[in-house]
Amino acid sequence: MRMLGEAAKLAAAELALAAPERKTAALHAMAKAIRDRAGVILAANAEDMKAAEARNLSAALLDRLKLNEVRVEAMAKGLEEIAAQPDPVGRTLAEWTRPNGLKIARVSVPLGVIGIIYESRPNVAADAGGLCLKSGNAAILRGGSESAKSSAVIVAALQSGLKAAGLPEAAIQAVPTTDREAVGIMLRMDDCIDLIIPRGGRGLIERVAAESRIPVLKHLDGLCHTYVHAKADPAKARAIVLNAKMRRTGVCGATETLLIDKGALAFAEPIIADLVQAGCEVRGDDEALKLHDKVKMATAKDWDTEYLDAIIAVRVVDDIAGAIEHINQHGSHHTEAILTEDEAAAEKFLREVDAGIVLVNASTQFADGAEFGMGAEIGISTGKLHARGPVGAEQLTSYKYIVRGNGQVRP
Amino acid sequence: MRMLGEAAKLAAAELALAAPERKTAALHAMAKAIRDRAGVILAANAEDMKAAEARNLSAALLDRLKLNEVRVEAMAKGLEEIAAQPDPVGRTLAEWTRPNGLKIARVSVPLGVIGIIYESRPNVAADAGGLCLKSGNAAILRGGSESAKSSAVIVAALQSGLKAAGLPEAAIQAVPTTDREAVGIMLRMDDCIDLIIPRGGRGLIERVAAESRIPVLKHLDGLCHTYVHAKADPAKARAIVLNAKMRRTGVCGATETLLIDKGALAFAEPIIADLVQAGCEVRGDDEALKLHDKVKMATAKDWDTEYLDAIIAVRVVDDIAGAIEHINQHGSHHTEAILTEDEAAAEKFLREVDAGIVLVNASTQFADGAEFGMGAEIGISTGKLHARGPVGAEQLTSYKYIVRGNGQVRP
Repeated sequence: MRMLGEAAKLAAAELALAAPERKTAALHAMAKAIRDRAGVILAANAEDMKAAEARNLSAALLDRLKLNEVRVEAMAKGLEEIAAQPDPVGRTLAEWTRPNGLKIARVSVPLGVIGIIYESRPNVAADAGGLCLKSGNAAILRGGSESAKSSAVIVAALQSGLKAAGLPEAAIQAVPTTDREAVGIMLRMDDCIDLIIPRGGRGLIERVAAESRIPVLKHLDGLCHTYVHAKADPAKARAIVLNAKMRRTGVCGATETLLIDKGALAFAEPIIADLVQAGCEVRGDDEALKLHDKVKMATAKDWDTEYLDAIIAVRVVDDIAGAIEHINQHGSHHTEAILTEDEAAAEKFLREVDAGIVLVNASTQFADGAEFGMGAEIGISTGKLHARGPVGAEQLTSYKYIVRGNGQVRP
Repeated sequence: MRMLGEAAKLAAAELALAAPERKTAALHAMAKAIRDRAGVILAANAEDMKAAEARNLSAALLDRLKLNEVRVEAMAKGLEEIAAQPDPVGRTLAEWTRPNGLKIARVSVPLGVIGIIYESRPNVAADAGGLCLKSGNAAILRGGSESAKSSAVIVAALQSGLKAAGLPEAAIQAVPTTDREAVGIMLRMDDCIDLIIPRGGRGLIERVAAESRIPVLKHLDGLCHTYVHAKADPAKARAIVLNAKMRRTGVCGATETLLIDKGALAFAEPIIADLVQAGCEVRGDDEALKLHDKVKMATAKDWDTEYLDAIIAVRVVDDIAGAIEHINQHGSHHTEAILTEDEAAAEKFLREVDAGIVLVNASTQFADGAEFGMGAEIGISTGKLHARGPVGAEQLTSYKYIVRGNGQVRP
């Protein structure tokens, strides 16, 4: 681990000064290597899948682990999209001149070395490696044992792309999953690693947050709400609520609780009917129970549960203040939506709801770096420090102040 | 502590939505209250000083603890300067429209509740309280026992200013120093406090970093270098080096190591003579020993020591690459300066030195939020996450994404 860390540090120093064109060339070479090796990647993944099935791992995990041609192509395309983004390093973020003539500029720089600890999704290696490279950071990847074989061949492909562009292969390194103590050691290597990003379930993230001596950028819960305001457009509301809950139920941006304004009850029935029709279990409060005979009684626990499944909690609120209060109390500060045609209500919601992403008249499932136009994301931060919301290449940079003088001394 | 935390959270929710004019009015009222109560503040400080002298505390600590009319006026003026800054909350940091019509904006928001743990400087209460208010954050201040009486009357003055402007007094609260366990409890209150900022010596900062479950914005060492390049202007170099070391030796931006290029040895003698003349002890390597008969032999430890005193280490380097290598190896990523008239050398140094602040032809003692035009600072971050360099009101904000749609669902 120590050698790996030292190699990453050296690679990071080189990457920090690498020309944008060279990083772009490497990203394209990485995409090509992923495509060229699609067969090898799928074969390795098939072995991982076989082992996972033999261990009776859950269907959700198997789905995250599985690669197919479409998913491999998506990895390659993701790298090309990252390549097409503007270079986030060396941007002048602000500049001004002081009365004494000092010219001050705030300029973006890479963070250094980023450790990514992930569970079953092998495509995290490509996304994270690509974003770290784009932002001039070295990456140390530690995947779960389930995806060991898939991850290894993906990382090898990424490294061949680095090599083709004349960049150090140590810019993206994988920690062997056979080293059981590696994660604990990584989390204490604060002299080599500048940031840790865990990607996975709550257990992993809590362990990392508790043990790490390195700052952690984390994505905890995604307990997202959609609030149907009294002035919502009924047709839009039906389409958005159905999509927000059912497009994919296992993603962090899926709506878990539907808040219906008292003034929206008149057009709420079809919204619930659509959900039931799509196979969603609906758990409601007293008022919501009246909307459809398939609605079951909700308990207090439902307002605080991220189902990640085809289940939704439904609560009727008196007004927008009630909705905001419910969200700020039960939400996870991830993604929250209001459906309304009333501009004042929309602005109030956008202003007063404390979350990384707040939306008007759109599905909470847009909570995704690619959907935001960032090319890819390394996760969605639910913390407020450093980066909040989708974390793309720009969010993996820091800055330094550059001060140009002509002999100034401080009085 | 818990009640204090809950009160701070409520106050933070109110501050986050407070109009800029109201915050400005409060800052002016706080400045007025500090001036009006100058006599009371000085009397309280005199008691703190008497107790500190009785405990035989160090001269450096007594200097930090001591208030006089000038320092009280500086506190009031600092609050007015913070008031005059642009409001850092609600700025649109970026905005773009996606092909599907979603309008995305990144808008700055306060962090929430900030805990400030400081040692002897009572003026930290005014600076930190003012910056937190400006940035829409509630502050929980925990000062050292030495400054207990001074801090208490200063915080009371700040609260009277909040009250005068109709803002909650709980926006700035002090933890009684009599509560010995308060710091430990604060550091675990991650449900109430969003950020911890320690201000003080290395011992305090390391304890806070080790114990805190809350993200910490910290200022560790300030081992700053000034590098005299072969193409430096000799007269500027003399003036800048003397100021960088001797203006105030106890501040974090004071130069601790002087690097002299081989090509600058021809004009280096007067630089060393000035330092000796000013009462500075000079410790040099073999080459530096030849520059002045008062230079003592340096040991390896000198390159890694932040003296915070009238002592300087002097090393002769072969070229700019040697200087950058020395700095990146021994520096603390705080503030580093090159003195040169050669633009290419300056740009190389600015680009390759990894520090929060890099300067050309100016004193490292400019490392200060007020000198940067931020009105005041709550410290200088030596970390790379969230904020780096001087931390003013703008650096105490986070952001959220505001997404405006017209019915978009995700395919």
